[in-house]
Amino acid sequence: MRELKLARREARPEGTVVRLRNGAAFGGAALAICAGPCAVESHEQIEATASAVARAGANVLRGGAFKPRTSPYAFQGLRREGLELLRAAADRHGLAAVTEVLDPRDVEPVASYADMLQIGSRNMQNFALLKEVGLSGKPVLLKRGFAATVDEWLMAAEYVLAEGNPNVVLCERGVRSFDAATRNLLDLAVVPLLAELTHLPVIVDPSHGTGLARLVEPMALAGVAAGADGVLVEVHPDPASAVSDGPQSITFDRFGALVARIAEIAVAVGRRLPAAGLAV
Amino acid sequence: MRELKLARREARPEGTVVRLRNGAAFGGAALAICAGPCAVESHEQIEATASAVARAGANVLRGGAFKPRTSPYAFQGLRREGLELLRAAADRHGLAAVTEVLDPRDVEPVASYADMLQIGSRNMQNFALLKEVGLSGKPVLLKRGFAATVDEWLMAAEYVLAEGNPNVVLCERGVRSFDAATRNLLDLAVVPLLAELTHLPVIVDPSHGTGLARLVEPMALAGVAAGADGVLVEVHPDPASAVSDGPQSITFDRFGALVARIAEIAVAVGRRLPAAGLAV
Amino acid sequence: MRELKLARREARPEGTVVRLRNGAAFGGAALAICAGPCAVESHEQIEATASAVARAGANVLRGGAFKPRTSPYAFQGLRREGLELLRAAADRHGLAAVTEVLDPRDVEPVASYADMLQIGSRNMQNFALLKEVGLSGKPVLLKRGFAATVDEWLMAAEYVLAEGNPNVVLCERGVRSFDAATRNLLDLAVVPLLAELTHLPVIVDPSHGTGLARLVEPMALAGVAAGADGVLVEVHPDPASAVSDGPQSITFDRFGALVARIAEIAVAVGRRLPAAGLAV
Amino acid sequence: MRELKLARREARPEGTVVRLRNGAAFGGAALAICAGPCAVESHEQIEATASAVARAGANVLRGGAFKPRTSPYAFQGLRREGLELLRAAADRHGLAAVTEVLDPRDVEPVASYADMLQIGSRNMQNFALLKEVGLSGKPVLLKRGFAATVDEWLMAAEYVLAEGNPNVVLCERGVRSFDAATRNLLDLAVVPLLAELTHLPVIVDPSHGTGLARLVEPMALAGVAAGADGVLVEVHPDPASAVSDGPQSITFDRFGALVARIAEIAVAVGRRLPAAGLAV
Repeated sequence: MRELKLARREARPEGTVVRLRNGAAFGGAALAICAGPCAVESHEQIEATASAVARAGANVLRGGAFKPRTSPYAFQGLRREGLELLRAAADRHGLAAVTEVLDPRDVEPVASYADMLQIGSRNMQNFALLKEVGLSGKPVLLKRGFAATVDEWLMAAEYVLAEGNPNVVLCERGVRSFDAATRNLLDLAVVPLLAELTHLPVIVDPSHGTGLARLVEPMALAGVAAGADGVLVEVHPDPASAVSDGPQSITFDRFGALVARIAEIAVAVGRRLPAAGLAV
Repeated sequence: MRELKLARREARPEGTVVRLRNGAAFGGAALAICAGPCAVESHEQIEATASAVARAGANVLRGGAFKPRTSPYAFQGLRREGLELLRAAADRHGLAAVTEVLDPRDVEPVASYADMLQIGSRNMQNFALLKEVGLSGKPVLLKRGFAATVDEWLMAAEYVLAEGNPNVVLCERGVRSFDAATRNLLDLAVVPLLAELTHLPVIVDPSHGTGLARLVEPMALAGVAAGADGVLVEVHPDPASAVSDGPQSITFDRFGALVARIAEIAVAVGRRLPAAGLAV
Repeated sequence: MRELKLARREARPEGTVVRLRNGAAFGGAALAICAGPCAVESHEQIEATASAVARAGANVLRGGAFKPRTSPYAFQGLRREGLELLRAAADRHGLAAVTEVLDPRDVEPVASYADMLQIGSRNMQNFALLKEVGLSGKPVLLKRGFAATVDEWLMAAEYVLAEGNPNVVLCERGVRSFDAATRNLLDLAVVPLLAELTHLPVIVDPSHGTGLARLVEPMALAGVAAGADGVLVEVHPDPASAVSDGPQSITFDRFGALVARIAEIAVAVGRRLPAAGLAV
Repeated sequence: MRELKLARREARPEGTVVRLRNGAAFGGAALAICAGPCAVESHEQIEATASAVARAGANVLRGGAFKPRTSPYAFQGLRREGLELLRAAADRHGLAAVTEVLDPRDVEPVASYADMLQIGSRNMQNFALLKEVGLSGKPVLLKRGFAATVDEWLMAAEYVLAEGNPNVVLCERGVRSFDAATRNLLDLAVVPLLAELTHLPVIVDPSHGTGLARLVEPMALAGVAAGADGVLVEVHPDPASAVSDGPQSITFDRFGALVARIAEIAVAVGRRLPAAGLAV
């Protein structure tokens, strides 16, 4: 960790709060509640989801337009159309929009639609992309690589910060393990560990972190109890028919119940739901 | 999981509650709070610790008399003297006593002192030992192996159950990972996963699970939020001078604060501290 | 590695050669060729296998009589009858016999039949068992644990050496990995690494190391090329009907071909087959 | 593996041979011997190295001009100047040149200098980059990701093939493990496994695979014994002063000795050095 400069805790002992234009904040007393489908599939799907998650208390809408898929023959996303649908749905419901960017050449167009640029696990050390999102100045959601050490993860954040962009949020989403019982192994101990090492906010993605819808709720609660600044949850109107990540997506009803339970855990650790959520 | 018979959830849908003679229970509405030093070192050390953890709300005292050490030249435990000290300290403070057994030939003597026999991670698939603790009928605390799958872990429990001993509690204590930032990687998703697969109670050991005293509190809270039936925490009068596991042991003060915070999280997930703890 | 004393290279710079009574040696110019079924199943099975592997050039017969099985309901071995069958078959064909011991209470009876005691991966840190095989004085084949570091493995060997038994052979058999494409991940780099760190011989088990019969030959050759002092290969008269480990067992014919190819690689790295093998 | 189409063995049962313009080939009877520094540092360094490795029998020169570094403050490569130096040195000594490309926008310029484009481990699932090197038509050296399954690796190759570029060579370079004794864990079993699953050639990188110069030779030999179509070795005039990867780089002398030993192993597995190498 010798070379970590801008991302280390000492560089900003009071901690960084990353704010999006709808008021959603990562790192303050209020949690960030990010939710939405794996991929934007249609107007109906993203509109229904945005409406439901906003009503339940979310303040950030997620949805992929450019999808990194293991197979070149799998659905690769609606691309620009997906961005437009995401933006419109977010705006209609007072949500901020976060979406993944895969190619440095797409940073500018994606940034023109999204409030926050997601760097996925596969690209955590895609340094050309990190530099480009650094130059964009847009808030960045930096997911941990499949087998990235905490040190490597923070160094990846440092790439963004070194380009003059201080708005980085880290997202723990599970690492590779020897046990196929869950899709990934959600490493919640990094939440308090990162709080020591860096001033950057940290959120938890229990959807990718477990791969199993029925484990999403307990692991979201555990993440908040461990001190996370928010959660990122895959929600879909009909998980069984989702184009991708159906097995780990939860329904609107379950998401509503989850937010209510997060509120209770949040109180126990001195945090609270975002204002919008409380207002519902 | 084809061959799992006695340990599977369907075999006892209502869930197993493992009770110790002082009333401590694993699997009921009240949590089990297990605490104590890595190793029993002296009368003074175990007496002070038993007194402190009982006062703070623990109901089970841990302490090793036979220590499995990587090096043959490291302290191997006080053996029978350690058992006697542990038993006496537990009795003076109304605690149950749990301690590790390493050798099938020691099961009988260890069982004559302890209320619960711990099978350590290194011995999770020591089948001779599993059969022997199965025959003993004593409650068993079965820690997960360093790199054991959930399936293998449940099959290890099945070895104990198959000998006629239904009193098995599973303990998640972290698995091996590629990142040396923490000693092990605490796999909290197994807590809700095991609740589906088995009727056996599950507790969490955030001390071995992280190896770092300052991560013990957040991860204990996270474990309870994930649905664990209790915690196992290393507590020492003076961690800096502990013969073993000092870096992951917490002080009496921090343990007291931890139990108070566990109480708050417990409420949020419909659980509570054990009666003794509430009475303090 | 601070505490390693007896097992470190400096303690015996010339290297240890572990010799069995039939002349088989681990650590000399000649390789040790160990082969046989996972489990001794019957007189016919072990006799046919012993005959075939001896003819092909093996000098050590393997065969389990006490089997460590994940499930308590799986075949646990023929026990004493298996030991008798193994001993008799080995003697008829001039082979040494190696077999696993699981329980410290069985060390004496197993040692009365076997020339070499195997400590399996699940028991690499079963310290009671390590001490007992140390006291027995018999040559020990110490398999690496599923997720044991090289340091922990050497410390396990140190437990045996510290009891006065210098005859330990290390066996790399693969470690746990995130990829289910092979049963384990055979870590061949430990072969030259151990040659630096310790004077103890090292052999390679490509059968457990891959779990796939068709990968056994290339990985056995790779092991010898990396400098291994021998190989341990599962051979069965009819792999498809084997009680255990069928998918990773090879036929007599394939074993014969393998030994012939090992001979060629051996020459390229300055080693040779054992005399018996050369004589065929 | 359901969706693998172009990369699967059945699509080209006879196997693919990837040929570079100097006659170097991957997948034929002759091995590909790729060697050179981690990074191109200067004219003197790359010229001396090219001369030495060509003399020793290499037919491909490696050298990084764009370096993917964990830290943004570490040396990032000489960029275009590095490409020019690499090209010139390769040409002077009859070598082909392979170098890494990090950014889809750099594929065209890098391809104008190099004979083969390397996709590094961090970018194995950088799909924008994979598509771009696919479109370029240049031979591609696709390194396995730190924690990529064989299935994911082949799917990454499929991205390149799906763009109409059939010239992909896979390179095993070690995966993440729990043991820090080596930098990575070289997974040689994938060599024969890939030979079943795909028609694409496979080479082995024992330098990154172990991280320790003294393990490079035995693991290169083991790789060839396992059936690899070539090796990729880091060679430096003075490893101790190398800007990057010094601890795993070998000297000219050791590289010469290594090639001589590879020749012997190659014969034992029915392969041979490239013609240039034999001619020395």
